[in-house]
Amino acid sequence: MKEGKTMQIGMIGLGKMGLNLIENMQDQQIKVAAYDLNQEARQKAAATGAKTAATLSELLTQLPTPRLIWVMVPAGKATDSVINELSQKLTAGDTVLDGGNSFYRDSMTHSQLLAKQGIHFFDVGTSGGMAGARHNGNFMIGGDQQLFAKIEPLFKAIAAPDGYLYTGPVGSGHYLKMVHNGIEYGMMQAIAEGFDVLDHSQFDYDHAAVAKVWNHGSVIRSWLMGLATDAFTKDPGLTHLQGKMHSSGEGKWTLDEALRLQVPTPVIAASLMMRYRSLEDDTYTGKVVAALRNEFGGHPVDQK
Amino acid sequence: MKEGKTMQIGMIGLGKMGLNLIENMQDQQIKVAAYDLNQEARQKAAATGAKTAATLSELLTQLPTPRLIWVMVPAGKATDSVINELSQKLTAGDTVLDGGNSFYRDSMTHSQLLAKQGIHFFDVGTSGGMAGARHNGNFMIGGDQQLFAKIEPLFKAIAAPDGYLYTGPVGSGHYLKMVHNGIEYGMMQAIAEGFDVLDHSQFDYDHAAVAKVWNHGSVIRSWLMGLATDAFTKDPGLTHLQGKMHSSGEGKWTLDEALRLQVPTPVIAASLMMRYRSLEDDTYTGKVVAALRNEFGGHPVDQK
Amino acid sequence: MKEGKTMQIGMIGLGKMGLNLIENMQDQQIKVAAYDLNQEARQKAAATGAKTAATLSELLTQLPTPRLIWVMVPAGKATDSVINELSQKLTAGDTVLDGGNSFYRDSMTHSQLLAKQGIHFFDVGTSGGMAGARHNGNFMIGGDQQLFAKIEPLFKAIAAPDGYLYTGPVGSGHYLKMVHNGIEYGMMQAIAEGFDVLDHSQFDYDHAAVAKVWNHGSVIRSWLMGLATDAFTKDPGLTHLQGKMHSSGEGKWTLDEALRLQVPTPVIAASLMMRYRSLEDDTYTGKVVAALRNEFGGHPVDQK
Amino acid sequence: MKEGKTMQIGMIGLGKMGLNLIENMQDQQIKVAAYDLNQEARQKAAATGAKTAATLSELLTQLPTPRLIWVMVPAGKATDSVINELSQKLTAGDTVLDGGNSFYRDSMTHSQLLAKQGIHFFDVGTSGGMAGARHNGNFMIGGDQQLFAKIEPLFKAIAAPDGYLYTGPVGSGHYLKMVHNGIEYGMMQAIAEGFDVLDHSQFDYDHAAVAKVWNHGSVIRSWLMGLATDAFTKDPGLTHLQGKMHSSGEGKWTLDEALRLQVPTPVIAASLMMRYRSLEDDTYTGKVVAALRNEFGGHPVDQK
Repeated sequence: MKEGKTMQIGMIGLGKMGLNLIENMQDQQIKVAAYDLNQEARQKAAATGAKTAATLSELLTQLPTPRLIWVMVPAGKATDSVINELSQKLTAGDTVLDGGNSFYRDSMTHSQLLAKQGIHFFDVGTSGGMAGARHNGNFMIGGDQQLFAKIEPLFKAIAAPDGYLYTGPVGSGHYLKMVHNGIEYGMMQAIAEGFDVLDHSQFDYDHAAVAKVWNHGSVIRSWLMGLATDAFTKDPGLTHLQGKMHSSGEGKWTLDEALRLQVPTPVIAASLMMRYRSLEDDTYTGKVVAALRNEFGGHPVDQK
Repeated sequence: MKEGKTMQIGMIGLGKMGLNLIENMQDQQIKVAAYDLNQEARQKAAATGAKTAATLSELLTQLPTPRLIWVMVPAGKATDSVINELSQKLTAGDTVLDGGNSFYRDSMTHSQLLAKQGIHFFDVGTSGGMAGARHNGNFMIGGDQQLFAKIEPLFKAIAAPDGYLYTGPVGSGHYLKMVHNGIEYGMMQAIAEGFDVLDHSQFDYDHAAVAKVWNHGSVIRSWLMGLATDAFTKDPGLTHLQGKMHSSGEGKWTLDEALRLQVPTPVIAASLMMRYRSLEDDTYTGKVVAALRNEFGGHPVDQK
Repeated sequence: MKEGKTMQIGMIGLGKMGLNLIENMQDQQIKVAAYDLNQEARQKAAATGAKTAATLSELLTQLPTPRLIWVMVPAGKATDSVINELSQKLTAGDTVLDGGNSFYRDSMTHSQLLAKQGIHFFDVGTSGGMAGARHNGNFMIGGDQQLFAKIEPLFKAIAAPDGYLYTGPVGSGHYLKMVHNGIEYGMMQAIAEGFDVLDHSQFDYDHAAVAKVWNHGSVIRSWLMGLATDAFTKDPGLTHLQGKMHSSGEGKWTLDEALRLQVPTPVIAASLMMRYRSLEDDTYTGKVVAALRNEFGGHPVDQK
Repeated sequence: MKEGKTMQIGMIGLGKMGLNLIENMQDQQIKVAAYDLNQEARQKAAATGAKTAATLSELLTQLPTPRLIWVMVPAGKATDSVINELSQKLTAGDTVLDGGNSFYRDSMTHSQLLAKQGIHFFDVGTSGGMAGARHNGNFMIGGDQQLFAKIEPLFKAIAAPDGYLYTGPVGSGHYLKMVHNGIEYGMMQAIAEGFDVLDHSQFDYDHAAVAKVWNHGSVIRSWLMGLATDAFTKDPGLTHLQGKMHSSGEGKWTLDEALRLQVPTPVIAASLMMRYRSLEDDTYTGKVVAALRNEFGGHPVDQK
């Protein structure tokens, strides 16, 4: 049986991930006080049974000390701002978990800022998507190892079995999540390239059936292949969407880090670059090559 | 309960995959007659309870007509040779399954050769590794759809639940397996690049623990991640092996096919090229670049 | 002073390259008889002073024996057809030069076909674009070394100084041209990527001026950079064309060959794949990745 | 006739590039005072006829005001240190040129630091290698456009004809040089890959002869191809050197910038990554892939 039943936690940020997490936590008898700037988000949280607060200060009054706070807001300025405010309003002995996708060096900075006030900090890389936030999530947690013992019951409660790991000092959790995303980019691009070949082939494959069989017993079975099955089942041929591949930054950070360490990562690089390429309708690179071919060989160019 | 209990099959080729398959089949009450040129392999087959034959002709006498033959020998010349011999020794109405890694166009040729004698043929892409051959395998089967109904119980018996698919006309099974392997190359390279970044990072990760947590609830959970857990557990740091990445041809075929179809597959291409690169201790490309840098900038070169 | 003054040659194929070549040859006092199926092309050839023929048979009557024939028609079926006809109509001792972009193995086949009739053959890789065909061309010539001495004056006459090379046995000329084109793809893509970065940068560069300065004294000065100067001068920003990067096959052959030889050529591969990518408005790969991101993270997709 | 005859300049940094530059300048009747920490370097400078100084302060006394100083020391800390010292010792109206390979944002910072003292600054991207420093160099110059008129005669004197360009505000010179180097990486890798294919081919090419013919009339003629000719001539087969491809940072900066701007640059990325790969004898990536292949397929691994 899962532990953590008597824990209380404050959740800051009630987006897709935060809302699923508080439902997960409450399923495990963890009491949740929830705060978000957005009223609608707070109403959704209240509907799950959570106590809600309209301000950060109010949230803090709803929690017993020492407080345990989970921050789940967009990485970058939003997280910086929340951490800064927490450094002013929390008291020594409180603990902050950043479950968002913060850059690992930002997390190291946040930890130092909070430590000046005696506030503990863990960076929590969170994987598993919305479904994982709701049930059986995946968490990679960096911070002080001794203090980790105190928050471990929380992760035992909300994670998949074997689905959390203490990863080392502060920064190591978000770093690991960053690299996880780099791998994810490569795996997704590999799967997608395969289906693109099938799509152009002389055979007439049912992509949903292919994804399904590949997910049952093959070497490439994976959660992503299961999701591919779902996607192809809903929309065979994926005719209703454009192939724009957005990205949220962690693949780029992984590549930045690989370059800094001089580790060749051609697959992660190619995956990211094809994403950027997909966001452009036409490219200047293409125009230059077309112009050069025309210059030397008189090869016709496609006029606009 | 699985079906196929009264089937009889002849297995040609008793290597790692063939032996595991006949054990799998016999677990499912399929009677197996087994043939391999190699006496030791035949003895291993006999130890599983299979009837064995020292020649192909003897094998054929051990099977009721119409016969069902599974060919599981190396792709290329070995398969060509077996198919050719079968075309001469089988009789109309017999059925040949090629479960090996044949190139899909070879399978189309083999099918035509056998069809002249009234012999049926299915190309069976087989995935799941040795473990899958032994239990809950994965099979992609191309050939005549009406005839497929007759052999479907075999696959229902030996495959993982939902682990087989009738893929279309002859060639489509091996084609799908080929693309599966292309994806596999990309997924493996992506995973490996991620661990390479971790290996160079400022943090001191336990790679077995990382692979394990990534395999429980994360977006990149996959059979390969489970295998990574096993590999890192046996040999942390993988210090006992060299990073030579051999390949057996199907990744290259996938890339050949992508180029033929003009489908950009940069991740599959990079994965294959890094495999080739790993087989060289030094490269002529590197020498040329080093020489050029020395020529224009006086940059020092590493002398031999 | 250049030699070759008394030579006579028959040109088959009067497209952009063929017409420029016969002008070049006639400037060097080489007498040209010219043949093309297309009447307009023949009229253009006549305007240069060349004798013209409306049929291949007529062309052959216009040349002294042993005849020297330059074939300059599209690679593949067109060249196959001309070589086949020549094998029937020429006589022992005649010499055929294929100056087109034939695949090197086709050239080896063509040589064998002609050799049966005692006809000599050289494969002539031709570079330098239209301008090079007209003046100071570049030629890589494979075939019999002894016989090469007889045709060398032709190349001395029409090539740039040091602009021709006897490359070895038949096939080696077109092979070298093939690899030349692979390099060309990589150089063009590298140049184009650089200008693409400039185009997106915070600075407001005059691309024609940049190309011009880069072509005068820098490490990357090159004929292609000069062509870039011309292209940017004519159409700053290249606003009048689309970035469709077509390709004529030799880059792909180079990559095919590299894969066959297991030589990693990631730059040539990437260059070719970005060309293929440029020909698609949207990709299935992109749709699959977008669909997967939506499945696990609820990331919005771009609807069609 | 070249201008700039009456100019006087102080050179800081007398390495390979600095020494060649002061010889170039003195050929053009520019008077040079030269400073380097290293005594041997100063002696070499003195041998060219330059006045030398053992300290920066001494150098400044040797120059008329307003002074013109060319900094040619390694990018990063060394340049930072020199610029910092100059900001303290120069006087308003003096001008500093940084001809090194500084990161463009550092140059923008340096410019601001100097501007506080009324000191002018130009960032000068320098290309052409040692040969270009000595004769007919290539310079890309960012800074104040009005002030540029005063220093233009210097560049007219030492650059190749058309070999210098005023590129825009401070930073734009080093930025352009950075992108130039990115292109250079791609061109070098493309050329090297081509020769690698030749090296593995069935034909027996003379690489020096190939490079030479490719440099006379072909589409890929370029300064780098001329350098390849020289390198292959000196050491056919390049047997005396290792294929270690070092890099000095600007290729990486180009890629960093491309990623920041979301411009796909797969060729520049692949070029850089193959450089990093060349510096490793074995890779962790390779070990992981080898281990995974062994796990699922029992494929043999190369033991250490």
